[in-house]
Amino acid sequence: MVSFIPGPSQLFLTVPDHLRVALKDGVPSLSHRSKAFEAIYSETADGLRTLLRLSSGFHIAFVSSATEIWERSIQSLVERTSFHAVNGAFSRRYYEVSKILGRQASAQVTPDGTSFDTIDAQPGQELIALTHNETSTGVSLPGDLFRSVRKQHPEALIIIDAVSSLPYVDLDYTCVDSVFFSVQKGFGLPAGLGVWIYNDRCVEKATRMQAAGKSAGTHHSLVSLHSFALKNQTPSTPNVLAIYLLGKVTGDFLRRGISKIRHETEYKAAIVYQALEKHQLIKPFVKQPAHRSQTVITVTAGQRISDFAAVLESKGLHPGEGYGTHKQSQLRFANFPAHSKETYELLVDTISSF
Amino acid sequence: MVSFIPGPSQLFLTVPDHLRVALKDGVPSLSHRSKAFEAIYSETADGLRTLLRLSSGFHIAFVSSATEIWERSIQSLVERTSFHAVNGAFSRRYYEVSKILGRQASAQVTPDGTSFDTIDAQPGQELIALTHNETSTGVSLPGDLFRSVRKQHPEALIIIDAVSSLPYVDLDYTCVDSVFFSVQKGFGLPAGLGVWIYNDRCVEKATRMQAAGKSAGTHHSLVSLHSFALKNQTPSTPNVLAIYLLGKVTGDFLRRGISKIRHETEYKAAIVYQALEKHQLIKPFVKQPAHRSQTVITVTAGQRISDFAAVLESKGLHPGEGYGTHKQSQLRFANFPAHSKETYELLVDTISSF
Repeated sequence: MVSFIPGPSQLFLTVPDHLRVALKDGVPSLSHRSKAFEAIYSETADGLRTLLRLSSGFHIAFVSSATEIWERSIQSLVERTSFHAVNGAFSRRYYEVSKILGRQASAQVTPDGTSFDTIDAQPGQELIALTHNETSTGVSLPGDLFRSVRKQHPEALIIIDAVSSLPYVDLDYTCVDSVFFSVQKGFGLPAGLGVWIYNDRCVEKATRMQAAGKSAGTHHSLVSLHSFALKNQTPSTPNVLAIYLLGKVTGDFLRRGISKIRHETEYKAAIVYQALEKHQLIKPFVKQPAHRSQTVITVTAGQRISDFAAVLESKGLHPGEGYGTHKQSQLRFANFPAHSKETYELLVDTISSF
Repeated sequence: MVSFIPGPSQLFLTVPDHLRVALKDGVPSLSHRSKAFEAIYSETADGLRTLLRLSSGFHIAFVSSATEIWERSIQSLVERTSFHAVNGAFSRRYYEVSKILGRQASAQVTPDGTSFDTIDAQPGQELIALTHNETSTGVSLPGDLFRSVRKQHPEALIIIDAVSSLPYVDLDYTCVDSVFFSVQKGFGLPAGLGVWIYNDRCVEKATRMQAAGKSAGTHHSLVSLHSFALKNQTPSTPNVLAIYLLGKVTGDFLRRGISKIRHETEYKAAIVYQALEKHQLIKPFVKQPAHRSQTVITVTAGQRISDFAAVLESKGLHPGEGYGTHKQSQLRFANFPAHSKETYELLVDTISSF
């Protein structure tokens, strides 16, 4: 059975072997204050830097989930105002976190299944939060948007939720200040680790806020995380095994080549969207091709959605349900590096012959 | 090589097998909103309830670490005042977390290597935080203390840091309101999961605070954690694999029997402390026998500490270093269920013949 749930998703094929080696080498028993752990942290962070082509002003910290990063980023980077482009349930949740934490959060909302080509934030925002890939609905933001937002709001910190689009998305890191993801999606790993990429501007802002007594949070404030990241450590005992596995899978991705991974992702998305365009009944939920996600493909099939799901299951293809209010009316298909071309070809055949 | 580091420590011997089964059964690819995940949560929580003999008013939530529980417990349970019995570096850190979060935290401090028989908190504390086992120094609190604190401060919530003493410590849960631990110590698991046990009094307090707008934190506030715990879920994607493994190891502990585990722990501690009492050079750091931890044994050996460490390593016994300022002058030995009697007998022989 192949899981198409958009996270936790199918494990990347090398994960079981890496786990075996980790056990043999005693990785779970390593002290998180040992040189051996620092080497693991460094291998993983350096691997990600290479894979994503981060410039030197970017740093990497490890926390427990992307959900935690919503909270920590608002606590550490926003004194008063944040702006959120809400194109689904997860970008909405980020917006709500800012409000719960007492910030003056504002949002521009687009209906589910649509995305943004431009945003209309008031000037003077401290943080602009954009969800590159909305896991709940399968819409993406165009890369050009980041450049135009940077131009319009040069003073704002721009943070990208790329939870379900990395490592696929080729972000222009000169246009953003922070990016985050969790490992149980595109990296094909067991859940339990959030990765926070942030630049020196973020560190400066967090440091100013903390000095002025305006930062909340303790061990996982950005200032605390960064002070440990500089020595390849974490403020408290982390999910050591997950950091190790992320480093190993990142190494596998580097050997396969990020261009090849991107091309394969686009190939798999293209053949599915093509089959959906031709199909009478099963349709892409996202109407506008430019807004369609390459990594989370959401479909509708009218009243026959559960029949379609049953056929998929009979072929060993386990789809993700729709999210929230779309639970009964949609199916979602993760298109991550763990999902092979062959699996996608089988999915396309199953769609076409339904 | 056996790791005596008091966390991350030696894996419990069944962990590799449980990991293999987890991979075979697709546990890492399960949705955390699926019935299958709810069954895992329920198995783990029920197992812990049985193992620790929790009464029905207690609930169990999963977060990322015990360090996180320091923060979340202050955010969710303390409006103004917390009291901390500081008997080492970790109880001090908990105290500092409360101060960082702007609470009026007070502390009673005892020198490293000593513990408390009574505490002297001002009346009117909202939370009294006691560290049952100080991992940094190897001191414990006597069980009677919890009863006397409850009697003196019936209105206060009493929270126990049992990070490095569960499952060994047989707490009287009628005297405490909350207990927490992390899995990489006594449960012999990979790091990356904190377990928060709390009763209805905690839920009521957290709910009152949240209703009055006085609770901080978002997805991991106690109110949020509890609302999901009631349906065997978590507010965000958790470390699913760790929750699964904790349930399996708890099942192993239940089959072995908690009494047997406790007796073995006491046997192993007794033979080491006996050997140390007789030794000319290697001495227990904790002078008063009643304050000595059964689960983290800390020793000194004067100038010869590094010679002693080298002999241990040559026998395949990897000791933990001293903590913080004691790094060069002490060694620590975790005495967890993962550490066999045979290993401890070898440790005793190595001590005696040094």
